Amino acid sequence: MIEVIAFDADDTLWHSESLYVMTQERYKQILAPYELNGDIDDWLYETEMRNLQTFGYGAKGFTLSMIETAIELTDGRVQGMDIQKIIDAVKEMMSEDIRLLEGVAETIPLLAKERTLMIITKGDLLDQESKIARSGLADYFRCIEIVSSKNKEVYQKLLDRHGIDVNSFLMVGNSMPSDILPILDLGAPAVHIPYEYTWTHEQVELAADPAGLYRLENIGRLPQLLERLDLLPA
Amino acid sequence: MIEVIAFDADDTLWHSESLYVMTQERYKQILAPYELNGDIDDWLYETEMRNLQTFGYGAKGFTLSMIETAIELTDGRVQGMDIQKIIDAVKEMMSEDIRLLEGVAETIPLLAKERTLMIITKGDLLDQESKIARSGLADYFRCIEIVSSKNKEVYQKLLDRHGIDVNSFLMVGNSMPSDILPILDLGAPAVHIPYEYTWTHEQVELAADPAGLYRLENIGRLPQLLERLDLLPA
Repeated sequence: MIEVIAFDADDTLWHSESLYVMTQERYKQILAPYELNGDIDDWLYETEMRNLQTFGYGAKGFTLSMIETAIELTDGRVQGMDIQKIIDAVKEMMSEDIRLLEGVAETIPLLAKERTLMIITKGDLLDQESKIARSGLADYFRCIEIVSSKNKEVYQKLLDRHGIDVNSFLMVGNSMPSDILPILDLGAPAVHIPYEYTWTHEQVELAADPAGLYRLENIGRLPQLLERLDLLPA
Repeated sequence: MIEVIAFDADDTLWHSESLYVMTQERYKQILAPYELNGDIDDWLYETEMRNLQTFGYGAKGFTLSMIETAIELTDGRVQGMDIQKIIDAVKEMMSEDIRLLEGVAETIPLLAKERTLMIITKGDLLDQESKIARSGLADYFRCIEIVSSKNKEVYQKLLDRHGIDVNSFLMVGNSMPSDILPILDLGAPAVHIPYEYTWTHEQVELAADPAGLYRLENIGRLPQLLERLDLLPA
């Protein structure tokens, strides 16, 4: 019986990557007047990967990587006012209204009646807290964990800290490497709900679906799946 | 009897503000060739305060505020290469060796033998985790909490989550508004150990020392103080 369900937040409960994609488009428009010595998307991705260990995931590291890439690709010719425009675009993105994904507003309150719900998300601490608060969903979650990375050890520590039996635990998320594979590795089931955009860094190809992996198109199908899972022998 | 001692991290266990002060000096050198339309320190502080709600505390927000201030004070004339130098200065600061404050290396292992120790710190998630790991002290702390702000409600939630009785709790830190005043407000004692630099935002003047506030010059005096506190009636 699944007693505790943990949800990823960005692109699982609400739109996020689409905002990053949109901001990256604005960024490309800001750099459009310059002669660039490379492909923006490729260089930005490489800069993000190089900075990940120092800056971690989230909007602030994304901004700094965009600024570095702009300086690099213009040989330092990028104007101060255009760098300010990049920062402003991110600030705007961070204050956008939270748009819940289809089915979330109905399904989360329903599930919270019968099970313990939690959020396990990564990104900038304050930004994630702010999004959870603005989502209107905070009260349905017993606890909210914001972590710097999601791997087997991090999940194991969270389960230990909250005294959660791995046999009663289920994770729901859109990212195969962050939300699904480490959970399956722990021996718990995981539900993959793909988002319309997947960041290159999170793309994974599987030869075949591993045991314990369930795929849904929409979070609205989750209650039905849970009923089925409850009937499975432990 | 004090059973749980929580420590702030930056400027309580290791040097931090001195690195920010040093980086801000390098920042001023980078901007020295420009004609500026205002005082760097004042403008930077105002930018940081304006950005605090969006970016929170920590090195990444500090970087973005330095960049915005440089653009503003030079009317956009700041060169891309100089902005890159600002980012590089912060990256260097973030990878500096951790320098423990006087008495920390001896006192923390000693206290960990008899009491439960925890860290409650604010700042960027990954940066704080990295500093704690590099400090060599992580194993002495039962738990590490990285929060986006430190106020009475945040502390109360942490005490609740860990099932800590406020009467057995003590907080140690260098910041009056973050580490001391909210704890006294909860009714627990707090030990103030001032650091050589205090960020303007954290400066507080008190007419008189409130009850429960203890002041030490050095963390090495903490075991002695604890012996005295253990003898006090609850």
